[in-house]
Amino acid sequence: MTIFAKIIRGEIPSHIIYEDADVFSFLDIMPIARGHTLVIPKEAAVTLDQLSEKSAAAIGRALPRIARAVLAATGATAFNVLQNNGAIAHQAVDHVHFHIIPKYDDASGLGIGWPAKKLEDGEALAQAIVAKL
Amino acid sequence: MTIFAKIIRGEIPSHIIYEDADVFSFLDIMPIARGHTLVIPKEAAVTLDQLSEKSAAAIGRALPRIARAVLAATGATAFNVLQNNGAIAHQAVDHVHFHIIPKYDDASGLGIGWPAKKLEDGEALAQAIVAKL
Repeated sequence: MTIFAKIIRGEIPSHIIYEDADVFSFLDIMPIARGHTLVIPKEAAVTLDQLSEKSAAAIGRALPRIARAVLAATGATAFNVLQNNGAIAHQAVDHVHFHIIPKYDDASGLGIGWPAKKLEDGEALAQAIVAKL
Repeated sequence: MTIFAKIIRGEIPSHIIYEDADVFSFLDIMPIARGHTLVIPKEAAVTLDQLSEKSAAAIGRALPRIARAVLAATGATAFNVLQNNGAIAHQAVDHVHFHIIPKYDDASGLGIGWPAKKLEDGEALAQAIVAKL
């Protein structure tokens, strides 16, 4: 059982922000900005691609409301939502989690590296992805 | 009207991945990794905190399916989902968009800066956020 499963069950205490039938939200105890909040499904999926549509919809529905409350309470006006899947993608706990991370200025919060290049084979790639939907 | 609104209306071509009543998905034309895909609401909200629960739930519901197809088509096993709100948070188009970004190795894809510190006033902060829900 992951630490997040134990937090959902109340076996490990957390600073609870929100809870409904499918969703649990609490403060990250190692925040990268003031108000850094986690939003997780109660369903024990490891990665987002494995999460049920029901839980994924419930998470989506909850995000704007929780984000508004984080902004209102912290005074932040900008924020990032980040959800990592796989150790090489910076996932540290094997239970789906969305980070809501207020951004106060360039020097704080989430740092983003963005090595963009021009898309070269878009039509073939799109067809390959659509074929897997 | 933003470039994404024009893409949804078909006034600007895109490599379409998925579409339903509330959601539109297409390849990012400046990808930071092969298979970099955008998932956006048809609703013209600028930031996630302004998005309706209906559109937000629809986006959430679509994310696992689209992510699975991106992984299946590219061979990636890890990925990041990123959604930016506000220019200082790296938002470049004023229409809500979720990035699905495959992660192939440490040197490619999304770079993440993570200046974590211990949470000091969790209970007071949680109460302040919950009061704004």
